[in-house]
Amino acid sequence: MNAVDIINKKKNENLTYDEIKYMVDGYTNDSIPDYQMSAFLMTIYFKGLSLDETSWLTEIMVDSGDQIDLSFIDDVIVDKHSTGGVGDKVSLIITPIVASLGIPVAKMSGRGLGHTGGTVDKLEAIKGFKTELSDKEFEDNVKNVGVSIIGQSKNLVPADKKIYALRDVTGTVDSIPLIASSIMSKKIAGGADAIVLDIKVGSGAFMKSEERAEELANTMVSIGNKLKRKVVAILTRMDQPLGNEVGNLNEVQETIDVLTGKLKESDVIDVSVEVASQMVLLGNKADNIDKARQLVKDSISNGKAYDKFNEFITAQGGNMDSVTGNDNVKELVVKSDKRGYIEGFDTQDVGHATSLLGAGRLTKNDVIDPLAGITVKAKIGDEISKGDDLFVIRTNHDNADDSINILKNSVRISDSRDIVNKSPIIKIISS
Amino acid sequence: MNAVDIINKKKNENLTYDEIKYMVDGYTNDSIPDYQMSAFLMTIYFKGLSLDETSWLTEIMVDSGDQIDLSFIDDVIVDKHSTGGVGDKVSLIITPIVASLGIPVAKMSGRGLGHTGGTVDKLEAIKGFKTELSDKEFEDNVKNVGVSIIGQSKNLVPADKKIYALRDVTGTVDSIPLIASSIMSKKIAGGADAIVLDIKVGSGAFMKSEERAEELANTMVSIGNKLKRKVVAILTRMDQPLGNEVGNLNEVQETIDVLTGKLKESDVIDVSVEVASQMVLLGNKADNIDKARQLVKDSISNGKAYDKFNEFITAQGGNMDSVTGNDNVKELVVKSDKRGYIEGFDTQDVGHATSLLGAGRLTKNDVIDPLAGITVKAKIGDEISKGDDLFVIRTNHDNADDSINILKNSVRISDSRDIVNKSPIIKIISS
Repeated sequence: MNAVDIINKKKNENLTYDEIKYMVDGYTNDSIPDYQMSAFLMTIYFKGLSLDETSWLTEIMVDSGDQIDLSFIDDVIVDKHSTGGVGDKVSLIITPIVASLGIPVAKMSGRGLGHTGGTVDKLEAIKGFKTELSDKEFEDNVKNVGVSIIGQSKNLVPADKKIYALRDVTGTVDSIPLIASSIMSKKIAGGADAIVLDIKVGSGAFMKSEERAEELANTMVSIGNKLKRKVVAILTRMDQPLGNEVGNLNEVQETIDVLTGKLKESDVIDVSVEVASQMVLLGNKADNIDKARQLVKDSISNGKAYDKFNEFITAQGGNMDSVTGNDNVKELVVKSDKRGYIEGFDTQDVGHATSLLGAGRLTKNDVIDPLAGITVKAKIGDEISKGDDLFVIRTNHDNADDSINILKNSVRISDSRDIVNKSPIIKIISS
Repeated sequence: MNAVDIINKKKNENLTYDEIKYMVDGYTNDSIPDYQMSAFLMTIYFKGLSLDETSWLTEIMVDSGDQIDLSFIDDVIVDKHSTGGVGDKVSLIITPIVASLGIPVAKMSGRGLGHTGGTVDKLEAIKGFKTELSDKEFEDNVKNVGVSIIGQSKNLVPADKKIYALRDVTGTVDSIPLIASSIMSKKIAGGADAIVLDIKVGSGAFMKSEERAEELANTMVSIGNKLKRKVVAILTRMDQPLGNEVGNLNEVQETIDVLTGKLKESDVIDVSVEVASQMVLLGNKADNIDKARQLVKDSISNGKAYDKFNEFITAQGGNMDSVTGNDNVKELVVKSDKRGYIEGFDTQDVGHATSLLGAGRLTKNDVIDPLAGITVKAKIGDEISKGDDLFVIRTNHDNADDSINILKNSVRISDSRDIVNKSPIIKIISS
């Protein structure tokens, strides 16, 4: 077996388990060089992978490193994954909800690279919150509180890490089997028995079209079938920021507004309720989806979800007072210079503007400013007058001109009063 | 401009001259890494290149290194290239023919890697023949004798060298625009104004099908049009060894047999006459192809081609007596173990068997044994009896069992008397 023969075979035929393993293991242990792996990945980009091949690739990547041992939990482990969006704090919101309904949350989470931080970065916006716990503390918190989220210390899916870094610089990111196997391998190595996927579609998402998003969803549901994991995929709209807050502390604050019931209507609530309900169903805590939705809504209205949030944050050393205290951070307002109706956003630009303020990492070594962020004051369908607020910026930077310009240009304002803000939930796909 | 954007663009659109130059120059000067170039090459494998893109790539590769300055020659420089075959000594045969008809031959030739050596290796089978001459000696020989062939000392087309080495290990060899631009760039950098291409088709050739060979021919003729070089492509059959001799000294000896008229009928004569005639026409030494063919045949029958061969070899220090002298080399005979008609060969295996005897290089650092070789005693259509000679092997190795086995299995013998040995010339393509 050799790499060139396998690359050439893939041009015309499907590969065997052993051939895929030869490539992935060889690349992970440095016996296959970058240039052969990139040629192989580009061949996959053009020729695709069969469902068997995609599932084998997923398995082989899982086997390439550590797997998190959650055998101390008797319950079904239900995990959740989002393909990533601007203002996406759904993980923060649903964690205490599902934990309050008896679904254990035991997660090792990576840090974010991009618009805003990852879940761990957001939690670190809360003063005192520790994302490094011993294995014992992690287990104890899961057993006693029902939730623990820590930074990733184990060597999970090293094959995916190495392959992903190569895909990023060789034009091989946008391949559905490669995306699907990358996501699924990380969730499985993380210990998940069942997974709810939030697949974003639109200007702020990696998947720009519903068709591609649905193809990705179907691929991941099918991998789940092959590898004995229940998978539900929810296609959600990302044609504007999710909710009204973007940035680390901003998103924690909006999470609290949702959990306390202060915020009553929002696309971020709709998505969070659906994700949490599917998790409750997969975790066997409800007989059907309608009952699951009721349980989720009740957990917010009866305060149990917010109590669980407090308990979780406190158990990991976080100081809840720090979240709502005054911050000496500069606020700037971006106003509309015309009247009309908000038609849409270049959502990726909103994310980019927030990163520039200090809320995200442009490179791995950047330090995140937890206070930097944006409040979105008008969403799709809203009527605005000249001079109305579009965004409020929070930043410690002296100069936010670049972000202000990007934000101004990110909003499309129409004269038509027929702009409709569509439901954020597009479709639910399960096996 | 950056490599990933260019790779991604090539997935859907044609590139500009500047984008191709960015990739090729960047790779040649090491600012673009192997893994991006291999992803780019694989994208080209799948998406192809337009004629403009292919011509630009050719030009850019020519510009990446030295170009041979043949301005001391007033005449049209007509060069010849073969895509390579087993027993292909056509360059040796046509060089003195066209030189005797007034077409200057001034070549810097690379060494071969594969079945047998390149032209330079074959000439070195003649004792005393020097392939390293000063620029002055090279020029003087071209002016006085009309021919000089030396080893390549200049840094011709370094971009192609580096890209070719990468293609070889990334499954991106078999791409017509990449093959066409590689060949054409080397010929143009070598100083050619007009080029006759001998494109081999069949079991012993890189192009297995006529269709692909014709596509390659058309691509190279079109590159010639764009870059103002006259190009004629001859598709020739490589379903058996060309002529009867394979190996370095063997091929020199067969060359002499052709030039002296000792060998009168052979596929290698047919191909050589056609290549030489097309060169004579491109070099403006005849008004039409029929007159060119007559001039070529006359140059053999009147001895002028052979005289020129002697003059050329002697001018570069070669001792013609060494070619026909007895050699203390072991001869072994491979006999047929059944009767019938020769139906065909696995020609690549014949080449491989000859290499194993010492006639070719399996790796760059192998030393060629000029005396090692094979005589093919029966060709397609020949009737043979049990015990008849199929091959005569010449080797200095103690054990030639591997070669003997490969050769035995390389011949297909049929009971049918209807086996036809088709003309080796399939088609001639010019602009």
